[in-house]
This record gives sequence, structure tokens and C-alpha cells, in this order.
Amino acid sequence: MQPKKIDLLLHCRWLIPIIPENQVMEDCSIAINAGRIVDLLPKSQARQQFSATEEVVLDRHMVMPGLVNAHCHSAIRLLRGRSDDLPFQAWLEKHTCSTESLLTDPDFIRDSSALAIAEMIKTGTTCFAEMYCFSELIVDVIRNAGIRSQLSFAVHDGPTPYAKDASEHIHRGLTLYDNMGNHPLIKVACAPQAPNNISDTVMKQLATFANELDLPVHIHCHENASEIAESLTKWGCRPLQRLNDTGLLLPQTQLVHMTQISPEDKALLEQTNSSVIHCPEANLKLANGFCPVTQLTQAGINVGLGTEGAASNNDLDLFGELKTASLVAKAVGGDTQALSAHSALRLATINGARALGWDREIGSLEVGKYADIIALEIDSIAQQPLYNPASQLVYGQSGSQVTHSWVAGQSLLMDKKLLALNERNLIQSAKDWGSKIAG
Amino acid sequence: MQPKKIDLLLHCRWLIPIIPENQVMEDCSIAINAGRIVDLLPKSQARQQFSATEEVVLDRHMVMPGLVNAHCHSAIRLLRGRSDDLPFQAWLEKHTCSTESLLTDPDFIRDSSALAIAEMIKTGTTCFAEMYCFSELIVDVIRNAGIRSQLSFAVHDGPTPYAKDASEHIHRGLTLYDNMGNHPLIKVACAPQAPNNISDTVMKQLATFANELDLPVHIHCHENASEIAESLTKWGCRPLQRLNDTGLLLPQTQLVHMTQISPEDKALLEQTNSSVIHCPEANLKLANGFCPVTQLTQAGINVGLGTEGAASNNDLDLFGELKTASLVAKAVGGDTQALSAHSALRLATINGARALGWDREIGSLEVGKYADIIALEIDSIAQQPLYNPASQLVYGQSGSQVTHSWVAGQSLLMDKKLLALNERNLIQSAKDWGSKIAG
Repeated sequence: MQPKKIDLLLHCRWLIPIIPENQVMEDCSIAINAGRIVDLLPKSQARQQFSATEEVVLDRHMVMPGLVNAHCHSAIRLLRGRSDDLPFQAWLEKHTCSTESLLTDPDFIRDSSALAIAEMIKTGTTCFAEMYCFSELIVDVIRNAGIRSQLSFAVHDGPTPYAKDASEHIHRGLTLYDNMGNHPLIKVACAPQAPNNISDTVMKQLATFANELDLPVHIHCHENASEIAESLTKWGCRPLQRLNDTGLLLPQTQLVHMTQISPEDKALLEQTNSSVIHCPEANLKLANGFCPVTQLTQAGINVGLGTEGAASNNDLDLFGELKTASLVAKAVGGDTQALSAHSALRLATINGARALGWDREIGSLEVGKYADIIALEIDSIAQQPLYNPASQLVYGQSGSQVTHSWVAGQSLLMDKKLLALNERNLIQSAKDWGSKIAG
Repeated sequence: MQPKKIDLLLHCRWLIPIIPENQVMEDCSIAINAGRIVDLLPKSQARQQFSATEEVVLDRHMVMPGLVNAHCHSAIRLLRGRSDDLPFQAWLEKHTCSTESLLTDPDFIRDSSALAIAEMIKTGTTCFAEMYCFSELIVDVIRNAGIRSQLSFAVHDGPTPYAKDASEHIHRGLTLYDNMGNHPLIKVACAPQAPNNISDTVMKQLATFANELDLPVHIHCHENASEIAESLTKWGCRPLQRLNDTGLLLPQTQLVHMTQISPEDKALLEQTNSSVIHCPEANLKLANGFCPVTQLTQAGINVGLGTEGAASNNDLDLFGELKTASLVAKAVGGDTQALSAHSALRLATINGARALGWDREIGSLEVGKYADIIALEIDSIAQQPLYNPASQLVYGQSGSQVTHSWVAGQSLLMDKKLLALNERNLIQSAKDWGSKIAG
């Protein structure tokens, strides 16, 4: 029989497919055609069955699904490091006053996003959920970079630089939604900033659109104790309850943070199938508390993982986030087996994909799914000997070991070199913005 | 005037001297001669004042004192990753039964230590405190690697493969101590494993030697709640109290872990000037609790930082430990300003040096101190723009950015390449041991 012609063959020393769960495969190949995985087979049989336009030998590498960063603000990446270790008031002044004009500057937003995307690709992220207004501005950046993303449109009750009232916010957002159509790499979600910043009326309006269009809802929720207290004072109930009462707690709702969870909150999450997006490093850095990840996942609640933005995290390395999530889950739960290495990897892959409604397309290495794939070199001093590749990926420092990345079969990173983005230009642009902003 | 002849000139884009505190210097040079720092001066004046045998231009780098890993077990590095996510009993069986013969095998101990030292050098550690028996076996490894270290000799009441009783343990240890004499790079400490494993009589004996010889005491202490409970049952007091009652709580005592601290414990630490060695990632991974670092440092208690060993940490990257320490301190203390970036850097440099009794020689970049120095590239996508180099070092992923390392002016790492150690051989040796151990 003639070998079948395909686009790409990856020959992998190690492979974690994520589904089936808890598996580490050795010496197998991934056959990719027209952007999708068409076969996973023993390396020894790959060349008999397939003739590929391109082959990549990853013989010192771990191969796994690309990571899903389920919450970030890439559009303000250029502000990272301006507000560390400051008391709240100083932080607020530094962020909102001195940089206000930047936050609506199209060049700033585009250059910020490009830099963030480059950093994410280099550390293994192939899909990210962006929360910002002016998402129209970064569509071209994302298309050019070739990364997968869920963009969002901000919704506020009152006027913002983006729109004069809730209706105009929603109108602009739905225009973006329509324009993106069925783009294979870009989704659009609605993103009210947080429950306390939005009226019941607007919540109900959004719920209608969310139901009608199967529109994802991306929202900061229960980030800290004061948010709960404020909601109890103003509305007589917790923010999650308000979201539910207004119809906005849906299977496609993505609740970012959730460090405060009462038994009633947990019951609501179980009933509604909403997802939680855990941002452990931001929660620690802002002293906001601990999201009880293990309790949630044990109850069958879907938990994805995010880095948050420049104001509360100094990197976009989701492998670092994985490690922090797993270590902190053990300490907080008093259980050394809490959030095992394989469970942590699921948070950053299939669970993130599920939160974004993309779990049939990405999040695991299965035949039929998009070839969103990364490779990490695991042959260095810090990785050897390698008894347990999953735990070495999670408990070591892995982001810097990422060498290759593909999205829908398209190569974004090859031997640590960005292909679609120009690293030197991005660094220079970051320096130029840095001088301007600091000066 | 003729320029003064010296060995080495480092031209640094950025520099954090640690002392004076909270400073970031720009465009300065470090003049080094006979292993010590002889001047810190503006880059523009360096070549007028000094003529160096070697010059290194670090124009995209942060330069700072080498890190002090104040607690590790490098001799069991080859076992890393064999016991992750296991319940305690399974962990114990895996560690003590299947590998018992290895733990006394000279080749295993030497190869393990060499691998650990290579990993530490590559991630910025220039000085480490080793806790293991058979320290004689790794003296040559350390000498060859050129790293600075505090070795230790184990002390047990009863027989171990190392010695038949406490007297023989102490005798062998003091022989090592005598043999090392005033070695500029190696110190020797006594290391009873933990208070509950040692009798009052032997504690008192050790206290005599410690006082007489100014011998450092390195001991796991208050690692978890059950250790306290056991001590209360057996001796009617907490372990720290026993150490104090037997005279072993001295300024040169290094208490590793201290996750459980009562007001009385804190008062004892203040009175005795003993140091605490914080191992945040190990404490999290083994769900042992949180060391209240900020409370301790605010009370003037010296806190150093350690990675712990292969059983409870999957890397020896002290920069990762820094980040975890700082993030967790904020969350546990409910204070975003707890353990600021500069404070965290002190933990891993001057405080570690002070714990080991070496703070007059290393831990900061000051004239007269040994040239124990590292450089990190901070010019990449993940670091730019760079508003606050200290916070980017602490809250980013920095271990992988280390490019250069010197100990007493001797170069150990140049452009990420190990000089005295052969990286390829170390990886091969690790793989060979891995196959043998796993098989």
C-alpha cells in the first residue's frame, strides 16, 4: 500500500495526550493534515503509513497539547512591573492616572498584545482568553501571530472611552461578533468586568444574547472578600447568586478567580455547569485568598487556568502557573495528593478548552482535533533522570523549555524561534514604549 | 596615573548590590582581583583606573551576588521525581526500600552531587548548604566544581551505615572538620536530622563542640504539626525549647522549615539569634504548612532560603523559590506589600550568607568581599519593558535567564555554559543511573 500524503509528521520521544487521562506515551508519531490530527501511531510505523511534506524529529522532547491561558489582559502587557509591592492607593494612582491615555491608544494596545502573544507562544500557550475593550484593534495582531484566542467585548452600565452606555457597548461587541463569523481561530465573548459593576437590567440583557447566540460570558467573580461584602450590602446577595438570578450563570460562563466559595456557591456551580478560571499567582500576589481547586474539581466543576494581566502577574508563563496551582492546592488542602501533576496539566489544557467551549476541537491530542501542539526539551541537566515526565513538567520550571509550537498545524515556534513574529522588533518596541512610559 | 593591574573587570548594565539595600545601579563596573571585589565604579571610569587580564561585557544583563541555597540534599538528587503525588506510606516504601543500598553507594553520592551542583550553578546558586552523611565523598566533587558550600556531618543516637553510635558520628564529623581546616570555599557543620531523632545527652555533647569550635548546627526543625505533637508527648516541650534547654540554640544554628511558630518560639529565636531556613516549595508540596517569614523578618530574625532535596522539590532553582516565597508571604499575611522583591532577594543572598556565618565574605557586592557573582540576561521578550528590575527578577521566571557565574572570581558559567563540569557527561550519567534505578 502507498503511504498516504499528509502535511506534517511529528516524531515524539514522549507524549502526553491528556485524553486518555494520566498517560505518558513513548516513541510515537503524530500525523497532521489540513490542520488536524489524522493519526497517532508508533514511530516505527509512521513512515510506512504516511508520506509527509514536512517531518519534525522531537527525540529529546515531550509533546503535548498547547496550553490554554483562560484569562489574561494582553492589551496592557506593556505596563508590567510598574506597580509591584505598592499599597493599593499608590497602585491605583500609578495605573489609572499616569497611563489613562495609553489605555485607549490603538498603537499601545496593538504593540502590547503582540508582545504578550510572543511571550505566551514562547512558553507554550497556543490559545488565550483576552479580556479588554477595543478587541477590534487586536484582531489583526492575532491573525498575524497565528495563535488561537477568545476575544471579548467589555460591557459597562455607563460611559467609557469605548462606548457611551450599555447598549452601545453591546452593539459594538455584537458587531465584532458578527464580523468574526465562524473564524477558525477566533471566538468572541461578552465580558462585563465584574458583577458589582453592572446592573441587573444589563445582566438580563446580556443573558438574552448569551442564550440566543451561545455567546461565552467572561467575568471576574468573587475575586476577594470585599467584593462579596459590597454585593451583600448593595443587593442583599452574593455576586454569584445575582448572576444566577439574572440568568447569566450559564454553561458557557467563565468565572475568573472565585477565591471565595460558600456551600451555596458550590451548589450553584454544580447546577449550572459554569466554569471557574483559577489564577493562582495573581490571587497570591494581590493577597486575595485561595481558590479551593480540589474541592471544585472533585465536585465535577470545570476549572481552567489563567495568568491574569500585567497588574497582578509578572509573566505569562502558564507552566509556572501550573506549578503554583498544584503546590498551593496541596498546602491549602492539607493533602500531598491534591491536584496531582496530571490533574494540573488538565487544568491548563482540556479544562481551559472546555471553559471556552472549544473542548471538541482542542485541549488534547486526539484524532480529529486541531493540531494545537507544543514540544518541550526535557533532556537537560534539570530534567534528568526522568522517572516521571508529568511531574517533571509540572513541578520543574518548564516554560523556558518550550521549543516548538503549532496551532491548527501551522508552526508558530521552531527550536525556540518565533516564526510569524519578529522577536527583535518586539523587544525594541517594548523598550521604546518603556522609555516613553517611564519618562 | 597608570591603570592598576587586576584579574577581572565586569561591565554591568544593571546591578543590585543587595547592600546598600533596595538599590538598583546602572552602567557600573566591578573590579576583581585575587578573588575579591576591589572596586565598584562607573563604567565610564573603569578602564582608566584598571587594566584587567579579562573583561566581560554584560550589557544586556543584571548582575548581583550569587544565590545562597541554605538547605538541600544534593547527594540524593538522582532520585528526584520518583515519589511525586504519592501517599506517605507509598512514598516511604519507594524511598527507603528500593533505594536503600544506593544511599550509601559512593558513586551514587558523587554523581548525584555533581548533577545537583551543575543544576544549581546554571540557575544562579554559588553557595549551598548540604545536609547528608558521607560528606567526605563529595569534597572532591565540590572542589572540582568550584562552588562554595557548607557540608555537614550527620549525627544520630544509634547505628547508621555511617557510624555505630553518636560518638562515632561525631568523631567522623570532627575529622572531616579538621581536614577541611580553613578551606576558603568549604565549611563543615554538624547536622542532627531533627530534634525528635536525637537524645538530650547527644544534643548537649554537640552544644559543647558547637560552642568550642564555632561549629554551625544545621537541623530540620518544626517541619510540621506532628513533629511538635510528638515532642510534647515524649519530652513535654516543643522541639525548639529542647534545643534551647540543651544549649544547641545558638547564633550559628540553622533551623530548617519552622512552619509552626508559637509566640514562645518566636521569642526564643529573637533571644538566641538563630537563623530560620525557609523552604517554601517543599513546605507546600508536602502540605506541611506556612513559615511566617514576614513576622520573623520584622522581628529581626534572620531568614535564609533553601530548595530542600529531591524528595520534596523537583528543581534546585532558587529563583523559583524566591518567587514562591514572596507570593505565598503576601497571601498568608493578607498583605500585598509582604516580602517585597528586594526583601526576597535578600533572603536568597545576604540572609543565607548570614545563616551560614559567611556574611562578612559573601552575600552582597561590596568592596573586600569575595567575588561570588551572577549575571542574568534581562533583555528578552519576557523581561521588556523593564521598569523595575528587582520585581522582574523575583516575580518572573529568572533561573533560566542566568548566563554567568563566578565564585571567588573564578568563572563557573559563561554564556550558559558550564566551565569546570562537563554537561554532556553529567546528563549521560544521570540517564544511566535513571535506567538502573527505574529498571
